[in-house]
Amino acid sequence: MEERMPSRFSLAERRGLYRAIYERRDIRSQFLPEPIPDAVLARLLDAAHHGPSVGFMQPWDFILIREETVRRAVHQCFLEANRRAAERYNGERRALYESLKLAGIMEAPLNLCITCDRERRLGDGIGRQTDPATDLYSTVCAIQNLWLAACAESLGVGWVSILNFDGLRHLLRIPERIVPVAYLCIGYVSHFPSCPELERAGWERRQSLARLIHFDRWDVQDDGRAEEFLSSATTDRLPK
Amino acid sequence: MEERMPSRFSLAERRGLYRAIYERRDIRSQFLPEPIPDAVLARLLDAAHHGPSVGFMQPWDFILIREETVRRAVHQCFLEANRRAAERYNGERRALYESLKLAGIMEAPLNLCITCDRERRLGDGIGRQTDPATDLYSTVCAIQNLWLAACAESLGVGWVSILNFDGLRHLLRIPERIVPVAYLCIGYVSHFPSCPELERAGWERRQSLARLIHFDRWDVQDDGRAEEFLSSATTDRLPK
Repeated sequence: MEERMPSRFSLAERRGLYRAIYERRDIRSQFLPEPIPDAVLARLLDAAHHGPSVGFMQPWDFILIREETVRRAVHQCFLEANRRAAERYNGERRALYESLKLAGIMEAPLNLCITCDRERRLGDGIGRQTDPATDLYSTVCAIQNLWLAACAESLGVGWVSILNFDGLRHLLRIPERIVPVAYLCIGYVSHFPSCPELERAGWERRQSLARLIHFDRWDVQDDGRAEEFLSSATTDRLPK
Repeated sequence: MEERMPSRFSLAERRGLYRAIYERRDIRSQFLPEPIPDAVLARLLDAAHHGPSVGFMQPWDFILIREETVRRAVHQCFLEANRRAAERYNGERRALYESLKLAGIMEAPLNLCITCDRERRLGDGIGRQTDPATDLYSTVCAIQNLWLAACAESLGVGWVSILNFDGLRHLLRIPERIVPVAYLCIGYVSHFPSCPELERAGWERRQSLARLIHFDRWDVQDDGRAEEFLSSATTDRLPK
């Protein structure tokens, strides 16, 4: 179908945005030791800082972690948590779990903890009274901005969610009101895998988008109708 | 500083990603009635579906809302919540609050509720044991993908967080285990404002990025050092 409005973005610009979305990966294994130039890191942080935030609250902070002693201690927080997490699985699934590399804390030249200040007074609470979690959501939007910008800058990012967070708080001296939302490993990579690691390893598959679509109300689903309108994009899809 | 690694993205492609990040706005006032072509909407939903998710859990669903009766009822949920929210402010601040347009539910041709299924079993719990909120975070990453793709497609998006969520759940028949994370208004716009509405209206200002940066630990801040490395990007910054 023809677009009804002139596109303000050139085709190459639109392709850049979609490439970042489709090529972005959660990187754990492919980090190279090359340092990240200051100018590139500054662009990533500025991209995050231009994420949307409820009431323009800007609840985020960025802890840049390069010191080896700190990273080594965080790596211990990961190892402890990962050992406990593995115990949840049995048999083949356990063996598969243990074969997965789930963090690149020591390999990536930069670790970055992105936090949310739950008591930041900027924005005066506007938009946050009906859903107090929106400050956390704002922080995640900032994180996704950074993740996509990193991809466009040829940098891999891995989000480490398997951590002893009490240990992490203590190590990084994070106050009570501050939530460490994401612990990221960032660095140049040997390559970007063409699909998610967990898909490649056979842990999980991508779901059909059509089955996740509802019409006007939750209980109105129609795979045929959803597939039909989704297929209209195939002739007009930007390269993945 | 020179980049150490060849960039896989062309300059125009990188610019496209950064343009989307810097030009994206939370739209409430500029919606046009033109419908969104199916192919464009399909690209937005596919962009969201390619967000990162903990353990490849893909916890999101998409409720496309076009029926006027449903939108009118949601608009009531907004009006009720907004009336209560306004009561929090006094004097000039109250007058300013009441002058703000905070939702475009009736003007935007499409409303989209993006939800998180807290019990979805995909991914078998991997990565979620140390931080159970990561499924919500994954959903927000998907939302930010969609928001940026919309901007590149010349579509405005407004995230309505001021809502009576119990009323919304009832209206859209959303089951208990499902969290409505975002209620979005989407449509073509007359223009994209050059800065956030709340900044333009004098409600809040953008903070200095340098003051949000910490080195290795929360309690190590150094504005001079942060400003110095951030300024390295100014000569090399992509157009905003």
